[in-house]
Amino acid sequence: MKKIITISREFGAGGSTIGKKVAEILGYEYYDKSIILQAASEKNIDISKVLKSDEEAPFLTGFTQSLFDFYNKPINDQIFEAQKEVIRKFGEHGHCVIVGRNANQILQEFDDSLHVFIHADPWWRVEYLKNNRMQDVSEEKIMRDLVRVDRKRCKYCTYYTNTEFGDSRYYDLCLNSGKFGLDECAKLIVELSR
Amino acid sequence: MKKIITISREFGAGGSTIGKKVAEILGYEYYDKSIILQAASEKNIDISKVLKSDEEAPFLTGFTQSLFDFYNKPINDQIFEAQKEVIRKFGEHGHCVIVGRNANQILQEFDDSLHVFIHADPWWRVEYLKNNRMQDVSEEKIMRDLVRVDRKRCKYCTYYTNTEFGDSRYYDLCLNSGKFGLDECAKLIVELSR
Repeated sequence: MKKIITISREFGAGGSTIGKKVAEILGYEYYDKSIILQAASEKNIDISKVLKSDEEAPFLTGFTQSLFDFYNKPINDQIFEAQKEVIRKFGEHGHCVIVGRNANQILQEFDDSLHVFIHADPWWRVEYLKNNRMQDVSEEKIMRDLVRVDRKRCKYCTYYTNTEFGDSRYYDLCLNSGKFGLDECAKLIVELSR
Repeated sequence: MKKIITISREFGAGGSTIGKKVAEILGYEYYDKSIILQAASEKNIDISKVLKSDEEAPFLTGFTQSLFDFYNKPINDQIFEAQKEVIRKFGEHGHCVIVGRNANQILQEFDDSLHVFIHADPWWRVEYLKNNRMQDVSEEKIMRDLVRVDRKRCKYCTYYTNTEFGDSRYYDLCLNSGKFGLDECAKLIVELSR
């Protein structure tokens, strides 16, 4: 029985929803943004700064950006380390689904784990977001967000773990949620974790 | 019901074995190297040259290599095009499992398809090859072959399809066969193709 399930995901591919379904079926704890909040409170880090740096690598490109990031870098790194500790603590306790935050890499040596990546075609993700979390936003704006968030997650992943976001070799199971649907994905994950 | 199943795979991850199991369970035709032979015979291409160029991109690097490849390029490209035709013909007929040869990209617009990628940790693949297809070969030699064949398949994939070998976004389902075992992988593929 796999006691730790990590779910990495493209923006808008339904990874959190799948994660929640899996946690519910298995009776596991579910963690996503809560990790960062717990990490911040444990380390006495300013919550507003923390939320701003969620899943962001500390620097992009360009001189201004570099200057900006120079001052922000300590917070991002500090938060990553604090989150890592919290994730490892969750991992040791087991019986949980963790979404995002490179938990697959942080918990890679844990034997009782199942590391999942959820992706879908961009057009499917735009439609999914339009029908769910972003009903009042134009499709053009959603598409821009898609590109921006995906790029941010890629950078965060590469910067902190030196692995490639979405490369199947870093996960046990990768699923196209647009092809199979969220319920079927959750069912498969549950099946493979038993 | 998915009528075409393509399986891309790392060397030694058991992709062909899984493909054969799936074909057997579903009563589908199974194709791998046979594609290249059929392609060659349909186009009157010399079989010995064909086997040499199997899943190889036409050039590597370096001046000598370039010269060598300059003369070989036509055969590789010719074979790729001939295989593409054969694969599309199989795809149109349906009810088949196709292993390797970038069939996932060649048949990407076919609706009734399921594109799978099979991978496993290098140490697992060495052990698997040692216990199966390469019993008389030293582990060091198998490891060298692993690196060489993986690299060759990556190049072939990038050269002919402009996609990244093993990037989950180019497949519907990616499985770590070392984690789940070959029978479980075959079972999952069958389940998802129904």
